[in-house]
Amino acid sequence: MVAGAMKTLTEYLWFETQKKRELVRLTDTVAQLVKKAGIKEGFALVSAMHITAGVFVNDNEPGLFDDIWEWLEKLAPENPDYRHHQTGEDNGDAHLKSLLIHHQVMIPVTKSLLDLGPWQQIFYAEFDGQRRKRVIVKVMGD
Amino acid sequence: MVAGAMKTLTEYLWFETQKKRELVRLTDTVAQLVKKAGIKEGFALVSAMHITAGVFVNDNEPGLFDDIWEWLEKLAPENPDYRHHQTGEDNGDAHLKSLLIHHQVMIPVTKSLLDLGPWQQIFYAEFDGQRRKRVIVKVMGD
Amino acid sequence: MVAGAMKTLTEYLWFETQKKRELVRLTDTVAQLVKKAGIKEGFALVSAMHITAGVFVNDNEPGLFDDIWEWLEKLAPENPDYRHHQTGEDNGDAHLKSLLIHHQVMIPVTKSLLDLGPWQQIFYAEFDGQRRKRVIVKVMGD
Repeated sequence: MVAGAMKTLTEYLWFETQKKRELVRLTDTVAQLVKKAGIKEGFALVSAMHITAGVFVNDNEPGLFDDIWEWLEKLAPENPDYRHHQTGEDNGDAHLKSLLIHHQVMIPVTKSLLDLGPWQQIFYAEFDGQRRKRVIVKVMGD
Repeated sequence: MVAGAMKTLTEYLWFETQKKRELVRLTDTVAQLVKKAGIKEGFALVSAMHITAGVFVNDNEPGLFDDIWEWLEKLAPENPDYRHHQTGEDNGDAHLKSLLIHHQVMIPVTKSLLDLGPWQQIFYAEFDGQRRKRVIVKVMGD
Repeated sequence: MVAGAMKTLTEYLWFETQKKRELVRLTDTVAQLVKKAGIKEGFALVSAMHITAGVFVNDNEPGLFDDIWEWLEKLAPENPDYRHHQTGEDNGDAHLKSLLIHHQVMIPVTKSLLDLGPWQQIFYAEFDGQRRKRVIVKVMGD
């Protein structure tokens, strides 16, 4: 057990992906922000600030990326008939993909490092890109 | 980086929806609780206390709500044959919908405000309503 | 509103399930760790450290467990054709199941107890077991 004074750090990561759908690895950036926050023990929230993007933790393996995209398309397919499209949007599937993959993760921080398993990597999942979008990283600890 | 003394606030929101399935927007209520907690920087956990409900962040758009309900019903359909129904329950689908949409979100708090993107709204998703159920809001920060 | 000094506790739970797929109830263990941490108010993160496992909160009902397994297999089936298998792995479905069920939950702690609803139980979901794997429990509060 460790006791101390609370510190927080808040930073916003901006993305403008070249493709409509893209995965961006965030692990190193989040680790640097934890270092900048100067905490030893705590949590780092990594959370998409848009409703057509996700953040998840999984393996950094390109074959798996293809499997994930194919799976997301199967479970939350592009479809011209979404009612959301009556607003003029065409990204109904991106909303559902965001709900499926979830939009945030909480990373434990131990001894100033991201306390991830050996294969765990943090990813930003863009489901409706080619425009500027943000992720918040909020670190809290002591 | 900001350092200070930790504060917490815990409140329970009660729901008794008129329909079996319903979405309830929580954003303003959570914002008021953050104000009441008196923190500047921290986190607000919004978490269903039942296993047949969810909490998610997405767009406040009625057409999308219909898309979400249709999608949830497709991926986790009502079905009389769930084994869970041998206990006398009839809400097996509500458990699966809760797992799919997830039962909680963590909202970052920055400068005393919910640090959400422009379209992000917090929703309670009732999958088996018409009875009293709760959501916990727990705020922690400084 | 309660103000105090922050404490943290970090522990790792090891699992080596006998079966490839298994659910392990963690509620009592997490409650003990919260007691050990000595906090009254705060959060306990329970997070799988592997990319082929999940952590979720739902009902402790064996019929439902069967429903959950069947549902996961339907939405993220075993399939020899995953591209991830070109690396020599055969657990592509376990990655997708992990994404679907999510790999972590945040449990609120109030008056030194897990602040869960009456039916909420914490589970570790093993999707590719029969080997040593870990869950981190990180408690933070005051």
